Amino acid sequence: MTLEEKLAQIVGYWVDQGGDVVAPMAGEMKSSSRYDQATVSGIGHLTRVYGTRPVDPVERAEWLWAEQRRLQTETRLGIPALVHEECLTGLAAWKAATFPTSLGWGAAFDPELVEEMARLIGGSMRELGIHQGLAPVLDVIRDPRWGRVDECIAEDPYVVGTIATAYVKGLQAEGVHATLKHFVGYSASQSGRNHAPVHMGRREIADVLLPPFEMALFDGGARSVMNSYAEIDGMPVAATPEYLTGILRELWGFDGVVVSDYFAVAFLHLTHAVAADKGVAAELALAAGIDMELPSGDAYLAPLRERIRAGLADEALVDQAVLRVLAQKEELGLLDADFASPPRTIDLDTPEHREIARRLAEESLVLLTNDGVLPLTGAVGASGRRIAVIGPNADSSEALMGCYSFANHVLAHHPDVPLGFDIPTLAEALRDELPGSEFSVVEGCAVEGDDRSGFAAALQAAQDSDLAIVAVGDRAGLFGRGTVGEGNDVESLDLPGVQRDLVEAIIATGTPVVMVLLTGRPYAIDWAVSGPAAPAAVVQAFFPGEEGGSAIAGVLSGRVAPSGHLPVSLPRSAGAQPFSYLHPLLGGASEVTSADSAPVLPFGHGLTYTTFERSALDLDASEVAAGDAFTATVTVRNTGPRAGTDLVQLYAHDVYASVTRPVAQLLGYQRVHLEPGAEVRVSFRVPTSRLAFSDAAYQRIVEPGDVELWVGPSCAERETETALAITGPVYRVTIADERLVEVVVSDAEQVEPETPFVSSSQPVLEPR
Amino acid sequence: MTLEEKLAQIVGYWVDQGGDVVAPMAGEMKSSSRYDQATVSGIGHLTRVYGTRPVDPVERAEWLWAEQRRLQTETRLGIPALVHEECLTGLAAWKAATFPTSLGWGAAFDPELVEEMARLIGGSMRELGIHQGLAPVLDVIRDPRWGRVDECIAEDPYVVGTIATAYVKGLQAEGVHATLKHFVGYSASQSGRNHAPVHMGRREIADVLLPPFEMALFDGGARSVMNSYAEIDGMPVAATPEYLTGILRELWGFDGVVVSDYFAVAFLHLTHAVAADKGVAAELALAAGIDMELPSGDAYLAPLRERIRAGLADEALVDQAVLRVLAQKEELGLLDADFASPPRTIDLDTPEHREIARRLAEESLVLLTNDGVLPLTGAVGASGRRIAVIGPNADSSEALMGCYSFANHVLAHHPDVPLGFDIPTLAEALRDELPGSEFSVVEGCAVEGDDRSGFAAALQAAQDSDLAIVAVGDRAGLFGRGTVGEGNDVESLDLPGVQRDLVEAIIATGTPVVMVLLTGRPYAIDWAVSGPAAPAAVVQAFFPGEEGGSAIAGVLSGRVAPSGHLPVSLPRSAGAQPFSYLHPLLGGASEVTSADSAPVLPFGHGLTYTTFERSALDLDASEVAAGDAFTATVTVRNTGPRAGTDLVQLYAHDVYASVTRPVAQLLGYQRVHLEPGAEVRVSFRVPTSRLAFSDAAYQRIVEPGDVELWVGPSCAERETETALAITGPVYRVTIADERLVEVVVSDAEQVEPETPFVSSSQPVLEPR
Repeated sequence: MTLEEKLAQIVGYWVDQGGDVVAPMAGEMKSSSRYDQATVSGIGHLTRVYGTRPVDPVERAEWLWAEQRRLQTETRLGIPALVHEECLTGLAAWKAATFPTSLGWGAAFDPELVEEMARLIGGSMRELGIHQGLAPVLDVIRDPRWGRVDECIAEDPYVVGTIATAYVKGLQAEGVHATLKHFVGYSASQSGRNHAPVHMGRREIADVLLPPFEMALFDGGARSVMNSYAEIDGMPVAATPEYLTGILRELWGFDGVVVSDYFAVAFLHLTHAVAADKGVAAELALAAGIDMELPSGDAYLAPLRERIRAGLADEALVDQAVLRVLAQKEELGLLDADFASPPRTIDLDTPEHREIARRLAEESLVLLTNDGVLPLTGAVGASGRRIAVIGPNADSSEALMGCYSFANHVLAHHPDVPLGFDIPTLAEALRDELPGSEFSVVEGCAVEGDDRSGFAAALQAAQDSDLAIVAVGDRAGLFGRGTVGEGNDVESLDLPGVQRDLVEAIIATGTPVVMVLLTGRPYAIDWAVSGPAAPAAVVQAFFPGEEGGSAIAGVLSGRVAPSGHLPVSLPRSAGAQPFSYLHPLLGGASEVTSADSAPVLPFGHGLTYTTFERSALDLDASEVAAGDAFTATVTVRNTGPRAGTDLVQLYAHDVYASVTRPVAQLLGYQRVHLEPGAEVRVSFRVPTSRLAFSDAAYQRIVEPGDVELWVGPSCAERETETALAITGPVYRVTIADERLVEVVVSDAEQVEPETPFVSSSQPVLEPR
Repeated sequence: MTLEEKLAQIVGYWVDQGGDVVAPMAGEMKSSSRYDQATVSGIGHLTRVYGTRPVDPVERAEWLWAEQRRLQTETRLGIPALVHEECLTGLAAWKAATFPTSLGWGAAFDPELVEEMARLIGGSMRELGIHQGLAPVLDVIRDPRWGRVDECIAEDPYVVGTIATAYVKGLQAEGVHATLKHFVGYSASQSGRNHAPVHMGRREIADVLLPPFEMALFDGGARSVMNSYAEIDGMPVAATPEYLTGILRELWGFDGVVVSDYFAVAFLHLTHAVAADKGVAAELALAAGIDMELPSGDAYLAPLRERIRAGLADEALVDQAVLRVLAQKEELGLLDADFASPPRTIDLDTPEHREIARRLAEESLVLLTNDGVLPLTGAVGASGRRIAVIGPNADSSEALMGCYSFANHVLAHHPDVPLGFDIPTLAEALRDELPGSEFSVVEGCAVEGDDRSGFAAALQAAQDSDLAIVAVGDRAGLFGRGTVGEGNDVESLDLPGVQRDLVEAIIATGTPVVMVLLTGRPYAIDWAVSGPAAPAAVVQAFFPGEEGGSAIAGVLSGRVAPSGHLPVSLPRSAGAQPFSYLHPLLGGASEVTSADSAPVLPFGHGLTYTTFERSALDLDASEVAAGDAFTATVTVRNTGPRAGTDLVQLYAHDVYASVTRPVAQLLGYQRVHLEPGAEVRVSFRVPTSRLAFSDAAYQRIVEPGDVELWVGPSCAERETETALAITGPVYRVTIADERLVEVVVSDAEQVEPETPFVSSSQPVLEPR
């Protein structure tokens, strides 16, 4: 391979972008001299063929198949391109299904369902000739001020790890490579600002940020990893071999491809200023372990070529990356494909998509408070009642979708193009859900801004109604468009704009209010959880996707029993950030500080329409040797009048350890559906490695000592507890150790069984 | 020495404390069985003999001298006790002078004056038989939410280092040992909460937090160091040998004594939970390098004795600590003292104290904004005018003093005991300053709480006056008493209580308002800096001490030209924290975030009553070899109508480096007094080690590359600039390298010369 041919293989080309490529329809790239020039020596990736503009999938597929054949026949080496797309909340392409955003997956605590969703996403991608998806996001939430929290799964690394692993399995089951991002540290940026410095030491990186990646690689077998934009302690990850090579390849044995986050290589020069030019940036990134520059060859093409030609950089760095990329193409079957038959019809939003979107949306809804107004089976739900549906998110499809949905990410720039799939708003869904009621729908105010001119109509509607359903929250978007999403970081965690004022004004009318939050981050809503201005009930939805409106309507009507739980603490205020439930004693309330950072509602909280009692937590043995596993079993009983699903949450606290340990750590979790009066025993087989941490010498160990265990309705409440003694000697954890907690539900009287989540019997990435 | 005798030497005994010791007057300890018992084998320290309760200095000295003789004669070894006290804003004892708080020292940017102050403090301590002072605080400010910010000097490590070094020199010139605290990391706690975890990597610790300590040890020769309460990345400093032994002793060669912060050893068990009992805590702390447990032997006495007796801990750890403590006592002359003559008269607040307190207070005041209303030489300052002096801090002595003043720290618990020294309030000082004016003094509201009942009288007073001087801000205190100080952390950086409302209401009367901030932290006062509710002028005072009221009055009247500058950024909001002016590109405004964390006013800002022009910044050479020094010279001219003092601020930005570097870094600074029209050349001899940083391998280096240099009125404005090329090869910095920038002011037409700040020619701690 010539140097040009090598470099072409380690960069992407972003179709539909660039000054000389303007037409939105398929086929124009072939006639673009710039595109022709970019592919003359071949090309590594085609960037977002379907995901950059609204293009007809069949037409675009026809172009893509032809283009792959052209690369096979008209370039010297005949290597097809790897096609990648965004696919976080569904394939980011026109007319494709939009699922709940990642925070909603976290709230559902249901890895199996996420795996089913990812399988559908992967199937659509495979149909369209897409080989790699830039998802899932494994950043552990550390600060809700960050705009990309809506793309994250949870504040707990194990929840992130299990759910992200499920996503990886689902996507890759369809032959599409998942991309773990962002490796590592992106979510912990200073004051929650995007790309801002991360202040963090080795231990926290190892014990909090890395485990989800380790799980998704070893248990999910993820084939690609994307770097984090962040600098950690002064060193941009994209230029730090310790992360992308030392941990990822040397420690973990990863042999897939590391792709750059978009423009991250050039950013080493432009924004981190650790490279005096793009050639140096390219060399640093390659040396650190970034094989593929995305979205295009800003640094890996001309700047790197010149640097190599000048003898300043070693071409061997390129060889290594090229070999990995070619190995990936071979693994994907690209080198043997004939691209003979592009799809003639494509449905990216089949009934199966909608069914999974519905189930996941339903499971993701968190009932935060309820004074009994919900479900609407009583007076206000009765036929003929008047319901005011108020708020900027009440009748908005966009309000149901996350930042990385095609609608909010791309279509926002094409206001005249229809969504291309069905996504009933909450107001529309409520009309369907409660056909006997009389509805008035009023916006009241916008998500952003200080315009109160719509308040009067909203208050009038509330006064004229038996119930007000007020839907407020975020609008997802990018870089200043919207209130949450990439680049939309905040210094206040109050609801945006005048939405709180709107809710409080409606409450002041005396009409019962159900507040529905459609948000991409948790907000500081202490006023709505308790106190004189608190609504009768609050439902938290994290951008629930195309079936989200119907799911919320179902929860309100009582057709659906809410079963979501907070995957992130409901924050006290922006000024109390950062905060994590995984804090040591001194990270919470203490006698030495007047500042209480306690969240308004704790991690794991979520109500439903029945009640559960957890009791009799016991162990198979009161002692376990460090490195072994123990079994904790708890009885869960539905003590209320309706069927429902409990999230059984097993927590631990290592009482004394050689480094500070969190006051609570979720060891394992399991959704359990129970009919009224039904009772099950839920057993968690917990490898003691779940309690491992990095010791003073940064060795990952299980340390002997006493551990408190409990089960409760959230991290903050010990409903039933027990104690475990881990006995010596100290156990050194290796990557061959089990990472997953196996859960078995027995004595089940469940009507709708849920498959317990167990580890894959064969890890995909073999320990080395 | 017996084990009991050894252990007795490495602990303190806190006189005047404890259940069986209640009388406030001197002499009671001798008759206390608990005290007798505690000293039977001798005692290492006596803790706060003068600083725990209001005791008459002469009476207490007499007791102390007798007690030292008793220890000499009645204990087997006859070793006197080392007596330590708090002395941050002056000796924390009854009737002693109270100087400005540390943030005020930072604002003055005048190390020489701080050294003079410390010399007076040390002299008082020496007179009283005190051997060690628990000051200064070298924590670099990282988050203004933290309550102890009032004890810190600045946001810039070099400012902290130079001023703390001056304090150390002054105190130790009187034979009293200074204690550098808190080593290390205390100020960077999560969300600014006291004792909360510090998230930080090695590089930031090395490049930002450690340099002030290094300076105070090598250039100041500090003889004692106190640990930080903090955990860093999961490891409490008090249990981490890497800091207190590895860096302090092995790398830096420190041979003095490390004392524990109060209760910090027991906290390893009680709050950090890294020790299962206090015996283990003691062993961990000793092994980490804490020689002396303060304030008393909670862990180093019985718990450690039992652990050693049981063969679980090595007595050699104790021996090492005892030897250091005894060496310190020898060095202090304690082993040869005869304690024959206690002082018969003591004046802890001499005219000299008051003179230095006045000068430092005057230099510390920062004029933030001024529309021309100040100085009050015009209409409103004329004789016969009516001035309303309003606000909770207008007529309060306590409002002039920091958290570690004896008044706010101790006397607050003895409300019937008089202060014991003269400290005119702002209102009192204004009556003296402007004798021809007519004053009305109204509180308006309290510092805390939501009581607006005093607003009406305040508004009436303002309406009836030609000018309103409104003094608002903090009340320093500890652990929930007050709004700032130890334990008084906040989640909002709005002014406490209803003070902003008071100011805005007064402004709405139309009477011109001068707002005086008496605070212990910078507050988010964007509304007061610009906009419709902005006062005509804002003066920022950081607890200016006993002469602070007069100093402020002098600035308002024009008798004193303000010359203080912000030693810390004036924050945008609590939700924008943490923030430091020392941020890399991505720590400031950027295209990838909607959240602007830009401060309301930048580090270094400060107005006066004249104007300065800085120009013609030039270098002795455009290139300098890494490791060498360069000279940057700038012309400063007083272009206004009055004499004044400029703070010449030389900043640098390393354009490209192998790790991310701050967009601005203060290299050196110098106060220069200039008559109208006068001009000087100010030369900074800058060792390139001022631009050193920890590279990828954590080696501290000076790296070749381009550096931008500028001088301006704050870090944010480049009034005159130039560029420097540092040439190769990379230079590895050692502790033998120069740390200080030498400043020479030439062509001076200065009336009141200020001594340039130059490094000591002989470092006190010899590099090894």
